[in-house]
Amino acid sequence: MSEMKRLAAEKALEYVEDGMIVGVGTGSTVAYFIDGLARIKDRIKGTVSSSDQSTERLRAHGIEVMDLNATGPLSLYVDGADECDGNRRLIKGGGAALTREKIIAEASKTFVCIVDPSKQVGILGRFPLPVEVIPMARSLVAREIVRITGGQPVWRDDVVTDNGNWILDVHGLAITDPVGMERDLNQIPGVVSVGLFARRPADVVIVGGEPPVVL
Amino acid sequence: MSEMKRLAAEKALEYVEDGMIVGVGTGSTVAYFIDGLARIKDRIKGTVSSSDQSTERLRAHGIEVMDLNATGPLSLYVDGADECDGNRRLIKGGGAALTREKIIAEASKTFVCIVDPSKQVGILGRFPLPVEVIPMARSLVAREIVRITGGQPVWRDDVVTDNGNWILDVHGLAITDPVGMERDLNQIPGVVSVGLFARRPADVVIVGGEPPVVL
Repeated sequence: MSEMKRLAAEKALEYVEDGMIVGVGTGSTVAYFIDGLARIKDRIKGTVSSSDQSTERLRAHGIEVMDLNATGPLSLYVDGADECDGNRRLIKGGGAALTREKIIAEASKTFVCIVDPSKQVGILGRFPLPVEVIPMARSLVAREIVRITGGQPVWRDDVVTDNGNWILDVHGLAITDPVGMERDLNQIPGVVSVGLFARRPADVVIVGGEPPVVL
Repeated sequence: MSEMKRLAAEKALEYVEDGMIVGVGTGSTVAYFIDGLARIKDRIKGTVSSSDQSTERLRAHGIEVMDLNATGPLSLYVDGADECDGNRRLIKGGGAALTREKIIAEASKTFVCIVDPSKQVGILGRFPLPVEVIPMARSLVAREIVRITGGQPVWRDDVVTDNGNWILDVHGLAITDPVGMERDLNQIPGVVSVGLFARRPADVVIVGGEPPVVL
């Protein structure tokens, strides 16, 4: 599967234009993208990173990492996903970086999502849906998630996010209305962000293969 | 005005029943409530606090402060507000504790709001609306707030919240649809919480005076 990831990442490099500030996501597929970006680093102005992990890899390659508050809107964001449906709506957050990823996706004109074929699904929800919560609200949010979605929230109790918060993974969902579920979960006090990218889906999905498939 | 605050806080003590775990808000009016609670502290089981500031005052009185994840749902929450309309919808967050306040309000069966008469308005928005944001999203959220509300967000640049985040105060609003504005602002990635309490308004508002007025 790692070769599929690499092929998707290589294809995404074609979306990088001279002088761009590139938003960079997090995860194993994105790691290939960062390594590819290193080869053309003199053509870009810099990057904005969605996690401490990606920042470290970018800097190790000598690629500049900038502050989103200083750059303003971005032209391009490249990131992976844990699941992707036929309308380019995603579940993300397996790596716990969902909030920063969502912020950069929102700030970007074009969001290119790179995945291997195993990430494609008909209906989102086979992958447990990550929800980032303020620690004191963990039990409250879990109760409301059960009431609203019927799913089973499980506390990822060995993880603290880059924002100092906790993650609930919601199991047992079949998300037939991703936009509605994202909106409803966002209303619960204590929810920082929901790992559904439906209100703002990917603009392009590249599925790794020979050749890669662009959706 | 401090006497009006004290009178409202004293009236709220009547809602405290034996054996309760009481949710306690933040601010100058709540400080009177905490001082009153100290007189009957042997009748209650404990409290859940919305800020480090209130926790300190509660503990100084020898009142136990508990973790919301351990207590489960609460019967009663008492807190102040920066503005209150005729439908008991509120603007809160002048003290930057809005996220924890919103969490406790959501977890509570009855939310009693205590205010002095100066807090009553016909239409919310004269008081700048606080929005808690993830630091890296400050500029992005500010741009979207301008687009969605037409208001002017101002960064409260000397404040970091108890959750490690930043506050934008949105000036120049006349909030004719508080439920809609709360819902729309909650959708912006990077928004942790919005200081509008409209989806879950107060159940009781006590306006300080002789006698206090209960709305």
